[in-house]
Amino acid sequence: MPDIVRILGIDPGLRRTGWGVIDVIGNSLRFVGSGTVTSKADADLCDRLVALHEGLSGVMAEYAPAEAAVEQTFVNRDAAATLKLGQARGIALLVPAQNGVSVAEYAPNAVKKTVVGAGHAEKGQIRKMVSVLLPKAVFDTDDAADALAIALCHAQHRQTRQLRIATR
Amino acid sequence: MPDIVRILGIDPGLRRTGWGVIDVIGNSLRFVGSGTVTSKADADLCDRLVALHEGLSGVMAEYAPAEAAVEQTFVNRDAAATLKLGQARGIALLVPAQNGVSVAEYAPNAVKKTVVGAGHAEKGQIRKMVSVLLPKAVFDTDDAADALAIALCHAQHRQTRQLRIATR
Repeated sequence: MPDIVRILGIDPGLRRTGWGVIDVIGNSLRFVGSGTVTSKADADLCDRLVALHEGLSGVMAEYAPAEAAVEQTFVNRDAAATLKLGQARGIALLVPAQNGVSVAEYAPNAVKKTVVGAGHAEKGQIRKMVSVLLPKAVFDTDDAADALAIALCHAQHRQTRQLRIATR
Repeated sequence: MPDIVRILGIDPGLRRTGWGVIDVIGNSLRFVGSGTVTSKADADLCDRLVALHEGLSGVMAEYAPAEAAVEQTFVNRDAAATLKLGQARGIALLVPAQNGVSVAEYAPNAVKKTVVGAGHAEKGQIRKMVSVLLPKAVFDTDDAADALAIALCHAQHRQTRQLRIATR
């Protein structure tokens, strides 16, 4: 019986945080679940962060992933947007860690390169390649598809990462 | 007997998050406690966020404040610093809200103006005025002093805020 490693990918955002769960079974991949945690733009910032925390905690409880991966945020947007994203990202990193699950971070270009084969890919290409790599995948938003792409990226790189850590 | 309202001020930062607790007793103020939650710069970001969450949750449990206030972050620094601050700030806003405590936000200039009387004040002036307004205050860092200043700012503005919300 090959080992099964369950991976949670998260694409953080204050308005929409995408999540996607896959199983790595030996050399093959299996879609497990995906979705989007949303919060209302007119709600208090605190309440939005609590909703995000509760949503991701629910995903952790339901799927019990062994490892998690989060996209590294682009920081070339304006400062107010970067701050908002940082606040959401803080929660996305916190929740798996609170559950004792290690969180890997990947640059957006690394995710695109792994899934599409090129560092600069359109949203449509990512959705398409996620569907090719995970034929049974369903996702309600681009954010959920991105989260699955992040999980796929981690599935490919996790062994290299572990080797690197082991040989340090 | 005058009402007692306990206020928690938080000055968020990834490396050092200052906190300060005061009681508003009728028209007078009383120092209750202050401190700094620190995390190691060489630790994993996730672990640092968990440490911050645990530290602030401990403060909430020990002091049981009725209201909380957090400084609005300056966003004119570089994007990487803004993102880091955003991540810490997300946790600082989350913890009181998770405990059912409302969180007010104040611009740094508003805090300085309330405590020192001028929108542009040096760290030393803030420490001094915090000690004048709260003679029994002790604080281990500038961040803890800033957190007390934020609590003092909220003590002054909270009734105006409530009136504003009530008349909306």
